[in-house]
Amino acid sequence: MDRDLTAALITIGDEILIGQIVNTNATHLSIRLTELGYSVKRILSVSDDPVDIKRTVDQYLNEFDVVITTGGLGPTHDDITKVVLMDLFGGEWVRSNEQFSIIRQIFEKRGRTVTKTNEMQADIPSTSKALINEVGTAPGLWFNRNGHDLFVLPGVPKEMKFLMDERITPILKEKNSGRFIVQRTLRTTNIAESTLADQIGPVAEFLPSHATLAFLPSFSGVRLRVMLKGNDKLTLEKELDQICSFLIEKSGTHFYGTGDEDLEEAVLALLKASNKTLSVAESITGGLIGDKITNISGASSVFMAGFITYSNASKTHFLGVKPETLASNGAVSEPVAAEMAEGARQRSGTDYALSITGIAGPTGGSETKPVGLVFIGVSSAEKTEVRKIHFSGDRKMIKERASFSALNLLREFIQQDLKL
Amino acid sequence: MDRDLTAALITIGDEILIGQIVNTNATHLSIRLTELGYSVKRILSVSDDPVDIKRTVDQYLNEFDVVITTGGLGPTHDDITKVVLMDLFGGEWVRSNEQFSIIRQIFEKRGRTVTKTNEMQADIPSTSKALINEVGTAPGLWFNRNGHDLFVLPGVPKEMKFLMDERITPILKEKNSGRFIVQRTLRTTNIAESTLADQIGPVAEFLPSHATLAFLPSFSGVRLRVMLKGNDKLTLEKELDQICSFLIEKSGTHFYGTGDEDLEEAVLALLKASNKTLSVAESITGGLIGDKITNISGASSVFMAGFITYSNASKTHFLGVKPETLASNGAVSEPVAAEMAEGARQRSGTDYALSITGIAGPTGGSETKPVGLVFIGVSSAEKTEVRKIHFSGDRKMIKERASFSALNLLREFIQQDLKL
Repeated sequence: MDRDLTAALITIGDEILIGQIVNTNATHLSIRLTELGYSVKRILSVSDDPVDIKRTVDQYLNEFDVVITTGGLGPTHDDITKVVLMDLFGGEWVRSNEQFSIIRQIFEKRGRTVTKTNEMQADIPSTSKALINEVGTAPGLWFNRNGHDLFVLPGVPKEMKFLMDERITPILKEKNSGRFIVQRTLRTTNIAESTLADQIGPVAEFLPSHATLAFLPSFSGVRLRVMLKGNDKLTLEKELDQICSFLIEKSGTHFYGTGDEDLEEAVLALLKASNKTLSVAESITGGLIGDKITNISGASSVFMAGFITYSNASKTHFLGVKPETLASNGAVSEPVAAEMAEGARQRSGTDYALSITGIAGPTGGSETKPVGLVFIGVSSAEKTEVRKIHFSGDRKMIKERASFSALNLLREFIQQDLKL
Repeated sequence: MDRDLTAALITIGDEILIGQIVNTNATHLSIRLTELGYSVKRILSVSDDPVDIKRTVDQYLNEFDVVITTGGLGPTHDDITKVVLMDLFGGEWVRSNEQFSIIRQIFEKRGRTVTKTNEMQADIPSTSKALINEVGTAPGLWFNRNGHDLFVLPGVPKEMKFLMDERITPILKEKNSGRFIVQRTLRTTNIAESTLADQIGPVAEFLPSHATLAFLPSFSGVRLRVMLKGNDKLTLEKELDQICSFLIEKSGTHFYGTGDEDLEEAVLALLKASNKTLSVAESITGGLIGDKITNISGASSVFMAGFITYSNASKTHFLGVKPETLASNGAVSEPVAAEMAEGARQRSGTDYALSITGIAGPTGGSETKPVGLVFIGVSSAEKTEVRKIHFSGDRKMIKERASFSALNLLREFIQQDLKL
């Protein structure tokens, strides 16, 4: 097949329409469908109205190769999706014995008895096939009409993901067989989109026509997404490797990871590989850097301790910052950042220490020390370096940006230290 | 007007369809429209395809009282919204002088010259009115057809919000005049939805027929959203106050704030009001509690210091936890949580200290101390209390839930301590 197969998503229920929740289900499904080589043409949210649901599903199933709905499969009276589809496709109710036994197991585990309403969740239209749900009570449904597929999923994210990944993905792969998409995301930081683009050079010189390169800027840096479409998977993967190697080389030290790898993961990997330990001393970020580091499983093998020294007294008391350094330079200054890093490293006995002090705002700024001014220190047994950076944004954004830059400075410092 | 006016949102562009960004613009607009008394019936994302855009806008404008589009108003060749609408509504290009001078000001400020492409952003179809954009270059557009309104906004969140709040809201208020919606959200925690419902009692006994009460459960607790619709705003507001007072009374100490007020804000408000100070000692949460507290502006007046004691040695070294306490009970235990809280309080000289130790997983759990087991300590000069809780979820979720519970225990402890 040489054209892209098309897909549409329909979210059923009022929560999204009144703005109560963000449609993250659609985002998950879009990413998966795109990876599988489908071109998503519509994402629609409709209310619980039966007429609306029936009309929309019917229209979309005529128009697109694949339609996926989420929501409205629960046990209460609001959950009308199944009844509407019975009306649209016809048939009679048949019980999925496999789903029924899962429902009973779930209720037994919770020590509750299965009600008639719960039992009926295992009933599906005979015109559909059940997509067995191992992580919840409602099965997914699979209808096919004139070669177009309709998949019907519950709205609970965990169950939606399970059914998409375990049940629907194999079907969609088969349907789109002979057509492949490969993609990879490269993460860079501390370089502007335009500078990076210049450094990489004219895209046409290294990118084949069946490939795309997207520059995705965010506050944490520019991600490069390479995507290739074609019929020979092996060739595509080889091409992808070549293109990515080229881009990584062009990005230099600004490149730090691929895919979902966060900066803190890259830092921890460096520390683990070199058998080094880390401590942090945070003022402005208030624990955010420690939080990020400890989000990574296994952090405890390299991350020893952190100091949240919010007051001047605590900087002196817990890190040994000299009172005269504070008095003559103020808490937000290069010498204080240096003494914080050195104090944290010495007192916790780690190989490296990272420190940060600044003004998060909205109050507390002055002409010489405006809101967003931050000093970041990195210390090893051999040396201590401090960088001064000015961040913009609101309080949370300044904390987020400052913690990201601090982790990046630490990464560069360690790389240099290890002569990587 | 006695029926709800209806609205639909259309997001134009591929970023949402490929799952690159979450549709937060739609969430913002949905919340605003709901507050203004409009019933949002559709949220749709379509690609940059002109045929698709034209057909969908045409259809939705027939069906709904208000349609709002976002996206596709930039200066590049992808941005085709305006051209498509000119095709649909007819007319000729006219320049908005007001927007044109704003464009020139923006470019002058950046030290760049205005190109022809930039100038053309001030051109709009003569069949529309310009919604002047003071925070960006693209004006919004306002079309009216048979009493139905179409608003066309840029996709940049800041500009979309400005135009919605400053330009469209007054128009929508006028259109829906005589029809009011008032609403308030009450935040409760540490109580199950069903228990809270029982405590509140039969809804019909205190809720008038023009009011709705929604129970919105999340991991952090149950929010109660009260919404009233009617024609007399003053009466509605009086009723809202009465209903909320009743619900707050019924929720008891489980109620902690209204609207967007987070738990950490409630804790800081308590501390400030009573002129008390706080320190924290975090193991499992790794800085997350400090991060949450320091997200609140003015935290520095009550939050003195935090200790991220991830290793056993750091618990002893920085908090004075006895090595024998660690040896005989393990780091995740009631005595260690107690000594951590007492150590943090004494060493930082604060009135209160909060401590937390536990197993975040996915590794490190055992039969007697499974992943998710957490001990939370709260200490004052008079006493130290420790609570044992078992959380479920992945590593990040356990950290999030544990930090929330810790802040809530602290809140209850302080309230009791101050005899509130």
